[in-house]
Amino acid sequence: MSLVVVGTVAFDAIQTPFGKTDKIIGGAATYSGTAASYFTKNVKLVSVVGDDFPPAMIDQFRKSGMSTEGLQVKHGAKTFFWSGRYHEDMNTRDTLDTQLNVLLDFDPVIPDSYQDCEFLMLSNLMPQLQKKVIERMRTRPKLVVMDTMNFWMETQWDALMETIQLVDVLTVNDSEARLLTKEYSLVKAAQKILQMGPRYLIIKKGEHGALLFNKEQVFFAPALPLEDVFDPTGAGDTFAGGFIGHIAQTRDISFDNMKRAIIFGSAMASFCVEKFGLERMIGLTQAEIDERVQQFIDLVQFDIELV
Amino acid sequence: MSLVVVGTVAFDAIQTPFGKTDKIIGGAATYSGTAASYFTKNVKLVSVVGDDFPPAMIDQFRKSGMSTEGLQVKHGAKTFFWSGRYHEDMNTRDTLDTQLNVLLDFDPVIPDSYQDCEFLMLSNLMPQLQKKVIERMRTRPKLVVMDTMNFWMETQWDALMETIQLVDVLTVNDSEARLLTKEYSLVKAAQKILQMGPRYLIIKKGEHGALLFNKEQVFFAPALPLEDVFDPTGAGDTFAGGFIGHIAQTRDISFDNMKRAIIFGSAMASFCVEKFGLERMIGLTQAEIDERVQQFIDLVQFDIELV
Repeated sequence: MSLVVVGTVAFDAIQTPFGKTDKIIGGAATYSGTAASYFTKNVKLVSVVGDDFPPAMIDQFRKSGMSTEGLQVKHGAKTFFWSGRYHEDMNTRDTLDTQLNVLLDFDPVIPDSYQDCEFLMLSNLMPQLQKKVIERMRTRPKLVVMDTMNFWMETQWDALMETIQLVDVLTVNDSEARLLTKEYSLVKAAQKILQMGPRYLIIKKGEHGALLFNKEQVFFAPALPLEDVFDPTGAGDTFAGGFIGHIAQTRDISFDNMKRAIIFGSAMASFCVEKFGLERMIGLTQAEIDERVQQFIDLVQFDIELV
Repeated sequence: MSLVVVGTVAFDAIQTPFGKTDKIIGGAATYSGTAASYFTKNVKLVSVVGDDFPPAMIDQFRKSGMSTEGLQVKHGAKTFFWSGRYHEDMNTRDTLDTQLNVLLDFDPVIPDSYQDCEFLMLSNLMPQLQKKVIERMRTRPKLVVMDTMNFWMETQWDALMETIQLVDVLTVNDSEARLLTKEYSLVKAAQKILQMGPRYLIIKKGEHGALLFNKEQVFFAPALPLEDVFDPTGAGDTFAGGFIGHIAQTRDISFDNMKRAIIFGSAMASFCVEKFGLERMIGLTQAEIDERVQQFIDLVQFDIELV
């Protein structure tokens, strides 16, 4: 049911070995919200843009099934801008430019119509703001999922720890899990992170898939082997959006359903990387998504009977 | 049924972040044969050692269920020796010393009792010798599996290509697949390698699992997330031994059975890395192996019904 997605809506300029873009629409909440909108039409966006942001894109968000009542448009201000260049292996990238613009004094407002939401996706954002959103919810959502990044680990440790304590599911990538714990082994890192507050941890390994941990169990989902990864931007956010979207659709927060949610998230991410930016994420059909999920089933399922 | 395993039997000296060993028993055929011996007691070893090799270890091979009639012991000569040091991440290593010794003029002899074997595992060895073994088989085995390494790609390209043409299943790691094809995408690399002769390709990705390809299908098996990888030496050979061992046991070379074989191979490899050298691979019980396979099932199985 109702899902609030908080995070950045941005302009990105991207260079990959396959080409480059001028300013295109990006941002963590854009990717997460768009992916989630394929699972539930009750996605409520909380973010901020400047008046340079195209109204047609806000219409597109609404058309995708997102409420934009919580999307603030700041007059006389510019939208957050990020520019990056991917290396040949597509697993690493350099940030070329970051202009925070409207993010500098972003104060997330939760409209009344967003209150009492069941699910909350805190996409990557300053941890203080993520915490503020949790505090501004009149009732605590059934499941709070939080994404973050290495930058906050390096610059906002205390605020990050305070926020992590409040969430149910944390998503980080493998190098961030190591940075957070000083453990190279992801199994050891996971155990430490699960001591920090979250009951569930997802470690995203890019082309190597994703791991879901709770204190007793672990589940692994591969990434789909693709001929080419065209542009990895937003893949992690898309994954998280598919994950929480499936959970919001089914309203089932069991570990078994989280496994399914990981597969749906992985399927959505496999679309995201096929083209620049959001291009492949607009106008997907249910048949395309089902076919992709079937590829995951075929990829990993095997049949062993132990006696 | 009968399985011939060809490759090196060696002394290794290993340094990892966890410790170092003096000369211990290693070698590709040692690991492959030992792993396979848990699945079929009809493993026939083809290799060569010097008279410095401990007879007690040859007895151990026999005790594990291997025939050593094809293991030549060269008097007045020394066993192949390799020494290496693993980096902190355990995924990369430096070779400190390689003394080919008896390998320099190794001429693999196939005893009569080894003829008409159904399955042939060509562990990593000079490609000319791997080819010679195939040619010396009076009847062509039902399935020939070949492992190789980057060194032969860099120094013995023509001989390698001639040998690859003759086998059914090739196993390489991800960087070797890229080296062999000049393709970064493993999907594209796999398609090119399947044009070189083999009907099946296994790409080993170490801690990131393994992929099985034929021209139409792909299957992925993860590696088990472990608290610590103590010593990765022999993990790839152990994987291959478990793979061909399961196939020899079941005599089923369908793609579905190869999937199961990949899981058994991955389970065996997950034991191998827990201690130095062969230490963990001696004296495993069926219950331990079953429990490990069950961990793989729990790790990757999920249940999605698409309508």
